[in-house]
Amino acid sequence: MLANSSLLILHPRVTFSLRHFSRRTQALKLLRTCSSSSSSSENARFGRSGSLSSIPPPAQKIDVNPPKGTRDFPPEEMRLRNWLFHNFREVSQMFAFEEVDFPVLESEALFIRKAGEEIRDQLYCFEDRGNRRVALRPELTPSLARLVIQKGKSLSLPLKWFAVGQCWRYERMTRGRRREHYQWNMDIIGVPDVTAEAELISSIVTFFKRIGITAVDVGFKVSSRKVLQEVLRYYSIPNNLFGKVCIIIDKMEKIPIDEVKKELRSAELSDEAIEELLQVLSIKSLTKLEEKLGAAGEAVADLKQLFSLAEKFGYSEWIQFDASVVRGLAYYTGIVFEGFDREGKLRAICGGGRYDQLLSTFGGEDIPACGFGFGDAVIVELLKEKGLIPEVGPQVENIVCYLDPDLQGAAVSVATILRGKGQSVDLVLENKSLKWVFKRAARINACRLILVGSSEWQKGEVRVKNLSTGEQYEIKVDKLE
Amino acid sequence: MLANSSLLILHPRVTFSLRHFSRRTQALKLLRTCSSSSSSSENARFGRSGSLSSIPPPAQKIDVNPPKGTRDFPPEEMRLRNWLFHNFREVSQMFAFEEVDFPVLESEALFIRKAGEEIRDQLYCFEDRGNRRVALRPELTPSLARLVIQKGKSLSLPLKWFAVGQCWRYERMTRGRRREHYQWNMDIIGVPDVTAEAELISSIVTFFKRIGITAVDVGFKVSSRKVLQEVLRYYSIPNNLFGKVCIIIDKMEKIPIDEVKKELRSAELSDEAIEELLQVLSIKSLTKLEEKLGAAGEAVADLKQLFSLAEKFGYSEWIQFDASVVRGLAYYTGIVFEGFDREGKLRAICGGGRYDQLLSTFGGEDIPACGFGFGDAVIVELLKEKGLIPEVGPQVENIVCYLDPDLQGAAVSVATILRGKGQSVDLVLENKSLKWVFKRAARINACRLILVGSSEWQKGEVRVKNLSTGEQYEIKVDKLE
Repeated sequence: MLANSSLLILHPRVTFSLRHFSRRTQALKLLRTCSSSSSSSENARFGRSGSLSSIPPPAQKIDVNPPKGTRDFPPEEMRLRNWLFHNFREVSQMFAFEEVDFPVLESEALFIRKAGEEIRDQLYCFEDRGNRRVALRPELTPSLARLVIQKGKSLSLPLKWFAVGQCWRYERMTRGRRREHYQWNMDIIGVPDVTAEAELISSIVTFFKRIGITAVDVGFKVSSRKVLQEVLRYYSIPNNLFGKVCIIIDKMEKIPIDEVKKELRSAELSDEAIEELLQVLSIKSLTKLEEKLGAAGEAVADLKQLFSLAEKFGYSEWIQFDASVVRGLAYYTGIVFEGFDREGKLRAICGGGRYDQLLSTFGGEDIPACGFGFGDAVIVELLKEKGLIPEVGPQVENIVCYLDPDLQGAAVSVATILRGKGQSVDLVLENKSLKWVFKRAARINACRLILVGSSEWQKGEVRVKNLSTGEQYEIKVDKLE
Repeated sequence: MLANSSLLILHPRVTFSLRHFSRRTQALKLLRTCSSSSSSSENARFGRSGSLSSIPPPAQKIDVNPPKGTRDFPPEEMRLRNWLFHNFREVSQMFAFEEVDFPVLESEALFIRKAGEEIRDQLYCFEDRGNRRVALRPELTPSLARLVIQKGKSLSLPLKWFAVGQCWRYERMTRGRRREHYQWNMDIIGVPDVTAEAELISSIVTFFKRIGITAVDVGFKVSSRKVLQEVLRYYSIPNNLFGKVCIIIDKMEKIPIDEVKKELRSAELSDEAIEELLQVLSIKSLTKLEEKLGAAGEAVADLKQLFSLAEKFGYSEWIQFDASVVRGLAYYTGIVFEGFDREGKLRAICGGGRYDQLLSTFGGEDIPACGFGFGDAVIVELLKEKGLIPEVGPQVENIVCYLDPDLQGAAVSVATILRGKGQSVDLVLENKSLKWVFKRAARINACRLILVGSSEWQKGEVRVKNLSTGEQYEIKVDKLE
């Protein structure tokens, strides 16, 4: 991915510049000096024959790949990650959310719930040297809840918090699914009204728009767990089965329907209740839902309010009611939503909802809360599909090189002066040929080349070449800006 | 740490503003409406009495603290971390380094070296669900070496890479020492010359200066492992003991000298060699070192070059030769350095050096390399000592609130318009009293308050209050900038 000879072709200014410089006797001399550059770069590649070289290499080469399901971020990948995270952060700040973080290693107990969630079987957990059961976090919300309980009354509600953190799940790997991913979370703690969920969805829509994704590409399926709850209550199913039933229903698209029914039966639901439940879950219109459940319940009222707020926020075209959305975490209690690609090629892009009772499951006092998680993997797949991956190349203001071994110190001084003025400088650390320097300049996308040559240096000057215009001039070092 | 009543005293504009608004009949009415705000915020605190509330809370409250030795980052801590990391990144980019990252979970084999390093006994390691031995990384350099081997010839040398990543060590906890910390690394791969080390130290000095640390506060002790190597060679001690001897010597300040001697003896060093070694290690002057070792060796030549380059970089006053510095990692081969506080209260602030032969220990071809690690813990202790912790408060451009339940949608529209223009907006999500809103505005440090009231809204206007000048005006919504 990095520099190669094709860059020389893509940047004709390189050969042009060489011709310009080569008019100068000094530069010619230096080009000769550095014509051995290929051998000197060989040296760089294979190292100075250090006197410690008799340390025996191990018998076997290590596995040079990162552990299965994990990623390295070489510069080009890191630039994309930084671009994505930058957008997460800018949107969060535009919505006045404050950034927080938690340990990636948490007590295992924080993630163990009794609803048979997929997440539990996928925990990276172990015993530490102090015999504590710990786990790499599979999600951020339980840590947030823990911190909110810990801070207690010292917090001024509502809290609007966001985080971008790495999460781990040991799972089968498919497209856009690895064993680690970074997750952008935004949470509102202390607001019981649906305005909170509406604002969360607005922030995700704002993010999508910023990166070029439209309502043609992506939609949100929205429902409320209170829909299920009302059905369960009608059939007198105990509340403590609620989380479990939600988890079973969430598997509907992943396992055969008979399997789902079997699991629901084993959760002590009658065949009649199951059929009714499945029928309700197939509803895709709020009007039909109201016909089914009546207008009095919280489920319909919350959803109507959300769709009304969506108009004010300006994202009506992004959202649709779909009773089948329940999400895979046990703790949701109200509105739930998930972002999906309209072509249906990818897994959910993001998801969230209200979790008003998570704190009490940790022994704290409940505070109304809602939030979402947005991974860094599926969105990149979607951007690729849509041809929207941005070009995020390297960029450096100056490359400083010297044309005589004696001028190394001078080049160091020039680089230091420029950096002192806040400029970014790639200092060529060895005596290299001009050809080599131009190639590197192209690779790192430098704006200017600062050449420290002896005749100029004697006058207290350096030679500057603007690498986009080709303009060249000499300038006093203290005049460099 | 967050909002409390003292903010009202610190920000007299709040009471002032309330008086201003209270002249308005409408506002007065609303102040009355919202005089029940304390009870409504109680509601927010304890949650809507949701119909799921019969889910029984667990018998026991979970431990609300993060696992021992780890940290939460609530907003105020996160702002400090972001400030620090921002400075790490800005300096790295000023030196034209490209950012990279690696998995925090790596194969354990990557960190197991045979020199008896402290790091080995402190690994957070375990077997994953696929029976692989894995470890939370205790440092970043081995991952970097792994990636360089993997990328091989596709990389254009030299590489200048930086990373800011979390590292884990299970160790005793003391001041500025936890079980996880973030580490800023900068590495130069492919430059055999000491200019590389000199540039690395320059970047750290630049960082210190940016955050207000001077050469009076901090210095660098510099030596070269080649000093030790020359002594060992003189006593015909085999090269393969080199790493081990370095690790033993690194303990000199931590364990009694007799213990160090005992360990050296068990590494098959003669008493004469040990005495000579200890004598050489006590040298604190380059001139004396040259007298001892002669001028011909690489150790003295490298160090002289480094001190000469330090002049050109402009940081001579920051560095001093000290033969006792060897650093605690087995893989260093040349120049080693560490940053220390001159008052001697803290552990090393940062450290690094040349590691020309790390790649071959992983079965790769060696490439000359050097780098440093700079933790996020000791530097914060130092900043506290010096009173240099910056004030990094929250900052929001607008807070938008509505003065009538019917105007919620209007407030949403106003917030959305402002965000569409790139402004940050804290939207008050519930109908709250003006007193509450002003308190929140002070806590989040909002610049402007946008009040959506019914008489203004009928004219298509909102009321704006500049919260630093106290200036108030009404403005058409479409004129809001």
